[in-house]
Amino acid sequence: MQVLRSYVSGSWFAGKGKPSVLVNPATEEALAETSTEGIDFAGALGFARDVGGAALRKLTFAERGEMLRAMSRVIHANRDALLDLAMANGGNTRSDAKFDVDGASGTLAFYAELSKELGPRRVLLDGDAAQLTRGPRFVGQHLLLPRRGVAVHVNAFNFPAWGFGEKAACALLAGMPIVVKPATSTAIVAHRIVELIVEANILPAGALSLIAGPPGNMLDYLTGEDVLSFTGGGGTAATLRAAAPVVKDSVRVNVEADSLNSAILGPDAEPSSDTYNAFVRDVVRDITQKTGQKCTAIRRVLVPRAHLDQVVEDIASRLKEFVVGNPTTEKVTMGPVATATQLRDVRAGIELLAKESRRALGDGAFEPAGVPAGKGYFVPPTLFVQDKPLEASAVHAHEVFGPVATVMAYDDADQAVTIVRRGGGGLVSSLYADDRSAIGEIALGIASAHGRVVITSAKVADQTPGPGTVLPQSIHGGPGRAGGGEELGGLRGLGFYSQRSALQGDRAILDAIVERG
Amino acid sequence: MQVLRSYVSGSWFAGKGKPSVLVNPATEEALAETSTEGIDFAGALGFARDVGGAALRKLTFAERGEMLRAMSRVIHANRDALLDLAMANGGNTRSDAKFDVDGASGTLAFYAELSKELGPRRVLLDGDAAQLTRGPRFVGQHLLLPRRGVAVHVNAFNFPAWGFGEKAACALLAGMPIVVKPATSTAIVAHRIVELIVEANILPAGALSLIAGPPGNMLDYLTGEDVLSFTGGGGTAATLRAAAPVVKDSVRVNVEADSLNSAILGPDAEPSSDTYNAFVRDVVRDITQKTGQKCTAIRRVLVPRAHLDQVVEDIASRLKEFVVGNPTTEKVTMGPVATATQLRDVRAGIELLAKESRRALGDGAFEPAGVPAGKGYFVPPTLFVQDKPLEASAVHAHEVFGPVATVMAYDDADQAVTIVRRGGGGLVSSLYADDRSAIGEIALGIASAHGRVVITSAKVADQTPGPGTVLPQSIHGGPGRAGGGEELGGLRGLGFYSQRSALQGDRAILDAIVERG
Repeated sequence: MQVLRSYVSGSWFAGKGKPSVLVNPATEEALAETSTEGIDFAGALGFARDVGGAALRKLTFAERGEMLRAMSRVIHANRDALLDLAMANGGNTRSDAKFDVDGASGTLAFYAELSKELGPRRVLLDGDAAQLTRGPRFVGQHLLLPRRGVAVHVNAFNFPAWGFGEKAACALLAGMPIVVKPATSTAIVAHRIVELIVEANILPAGALSLIAGPPGNMLDYLTGEDVLSFTGGGGTAATLRAAAPVVKDSVRVNVEADSLNSAILGPDAEPSSDTYNAFVRDVVRDITQKTGQKCTAIRRVLVPRAHLDQVVEDIASRLKEFVVGNPTTEKVTMGPVATATQLRDVRAGIELLAKESRRALGDGAFEPAGVPAGKGYFVPPTLFVQDKPLEASAVHAHEVFGPVATVMAYDDADQAVTIVRRGGGGLVSSLYADDRSAIGEIALGIASAHGRVVITSAKVADQTPGPGTVLPQSIHGGPGRAGGGEELGGLRGLGFYSQRSALQGDRAILDAIVERG
Repeated sequence: MQVLRSYVSGSWFAGKGKPSVLVNPATEEALAETSTEGIDFAGALGFARDVGGAALRKLTFAERGEMLRAMSRVIHANRDALLDLAMANGGNTRSDAKFDVDGASGTLAFYAELSKELGPRRVLLDGDAAQLTRGPRFVGQHLLLPRRGVAVHVNAFNFPAWGFGEKAACALLAGMPIVVKPATSTAIVAHRIVELIVEANILPAGALSLIAGPPGNMLDYLTGEDVLSFTGGGGTAATLRAAAPVVKDSVRVNVEADSLNSAILGPDAEPSSDTYNAFVRDVVRDITQKTGQKCTAIRRVLVPRAHLDQVVEDIASRLKEFVVGNPTTEKVTMGPVATATQLRDVRAGIELLAKESRRALGDGAFEPAGVPAGKGYFVPPTLFVQDKPLEASAVHAHEVFGPVATVMAYDDADQAVTIVRRGGGGLVSSLYADDRSAIGEIALGIASAHGRVVITSAKVADQTPGPGTVLPQSIHGGPGRAGGGEELGGLRGLGFYSQRSALQGDRAILDAIVERG
């Protein structure tokens, strides 16, 4: 059995003590084990700050961008092997695995490209110089400078590759060293990616560290110049926010947590129209892709009351075509959820939803393909229907992180906005409509509750990758329940890793400083 | 005795129960009392959100800006009366009081002016539309929209007017209703300003509420769309960050807390030069203005070792000219600190500094002018000298919030950077120098530890207002010990009150939405 090692202070380290065991969620076969016991966390963070940070800050944006390009290439060059690992350890179909692995290499390549426009600088200008007093000479110029701490990335189990890549791209380009802690259960892919990057000698010493398992008391050693970025459940997010260095020393925290993402079929959309078909396509994709384990997946489906039955029928009939089972088995199109804990949580969530909504799909006998009898963490595609969504509560408050969604009826655009906002803040909402008045009312009504709103109209129906795909050009994150965080969004993604500072002084002297920076 | 009332849910409310008593810190005479017992905090926040927020969001930026202009004017029209209140309740000299009150009207006027460029819109565009896929039609456009919660402002005792004005300007212009909680001890000025604004009928109902005293359990009622902005001590900041809605519901928090601000006399500055004289002027001003009770005041003074004695002599001789006493007494140029608690804390802080640094001024007999014997919260200007700042600790970690500073020797630019950064993150550092190489090295070395770096060279020596003055064009805040927050900075100040959301869709449809917004 493979033993995962952590990469800290420039060396690989195999933990002592009782290991965690990583399994294949389709077969429950043990694949690897890992322990982080014995890691000198204080030393690891210090090495990243002192050695890695200093080295990164000496590089220009263009040079940092070239490192991201090399990281992207090494991932892409090892794509097939990484896909195999993702299928084995993550329960991914090959298509799911591509979504994750190609997302990682693509996001790194995007930021490599973006670095070109920043060129030979080491600090970012933020806006233009502004005159501060009556005379023209005394001005203020905001800069964005790399924070001199370490960026700790606590990633989610569902995207071991992309989660690594999107956070790493922004931090490293901004000039901060990273310590990556993937979710233990699916850490094999992230572990292999770090191995590949280390073997290829792409980054300066200390720029990248890996904690391949439980983080122990690492967070106790964070300081005021460090940042902590977390993707995962709201309960863990609350624990991290209450960590002593966060509360006392202003450690900057970014959270991407739960989200009851919604898809809204517009008041004007007619069944069988291009817009309607895109809507059904996206809902079905989000229920099944990665077995519904995407933070951006559609959980709540809002449709005009007149179309409720038609929509349920169209979605359910498509879902019935999916073959659930071991991803390595031919014809299987949806794998298991990632862990036994996830299986338990998803089943409990389904029971919760069943108390207030009618189940349209997912209740029958169910036999996954290609797995030993009784093994694997499988859940069938499950669809609920809710006629009175304003009287329901669990559907707006409890994210079931699996292949589960609820179709709800609404009566008018204003009510659709109210229903969507009941989610308490989300990552993304998607609207499928062509009537500009309805689009304007709904989009502006829901936007401040979401980090992203995707509007699919007939002319772009075949161009959008769907709301579940996070593109690096746009921000990813959302208010309230979604954690209040923000990642990506082009250069915006560097802000979290940078300190904004206003330089005030003689215009000529500030120009000289900027030139030097 | 005046009874302060709170303004909640559109009505004035006098609390029940045992009141807090507000005094004149020069004479200890009781001036007013206030209680917040019995306030329906949940109702007050709800009224602000539902009534005030909805009304503000209907207004354009230009219309919101006109309200800020009216607020600025009503403060300025009542300037003399407000100055009298500040002198009585805050221990301010008339000059101190102007700094506070004119800061409020000036900042409101600045944002009123800024609103003109935003004109008839209700949402802010954030950057340009970016193409997302291969075709040119599907694009992303980031918007900044008003958050639909309430902004709670917990202000510090030292700037009852400016603290109100700078936070109110950004929140209201962004479209968020505010609930203002001034520090109880000096609340008379903020209370009067809110009275004036209410009497002048400037704002829609619910846009402005006042809690004139302890906040009770108000923060328990915050929700995920609300924001909390705090200025004050790091201990209270830690308590607020750990509040349940902050930890669990992603209430957005901005903190401006402790700061060991530094002033650095450059390696090249010669005594008696214009640059040197500006340095002495600014240090003396920051020690004495508002009796040293400015969050931006210089606490640590770094000078080349060769000039240590000269600097101490020049600063001390200027400080000896100050007349400490009751601000209403003629010739008094420095008042008391604001409260008995502050007096106790400042005295304790002085004792702490005295354990590791030599006292150059402030140890002798001391009799404040124009006050009854034994009354008032007076501290004389106090100056410490530290020869080995890298071996000292309290001077870098403990902010004494009064007329106290420490002059420290440094040996070269690199060491100056190290000493400054020992402060663990600050609001502002100021550098007095003309040599561009030294300026570049020091400014870039310290900028990521500060929200602002002020560079005073000979040509701007007579133009800068000094580092202690917060100008609305530049951000105010700082990392680490300073709380990790950010306010003002022109339009940047609206970001905290706004939700960034990426709209993705057909370019023509997004244009129509923006037009409508």
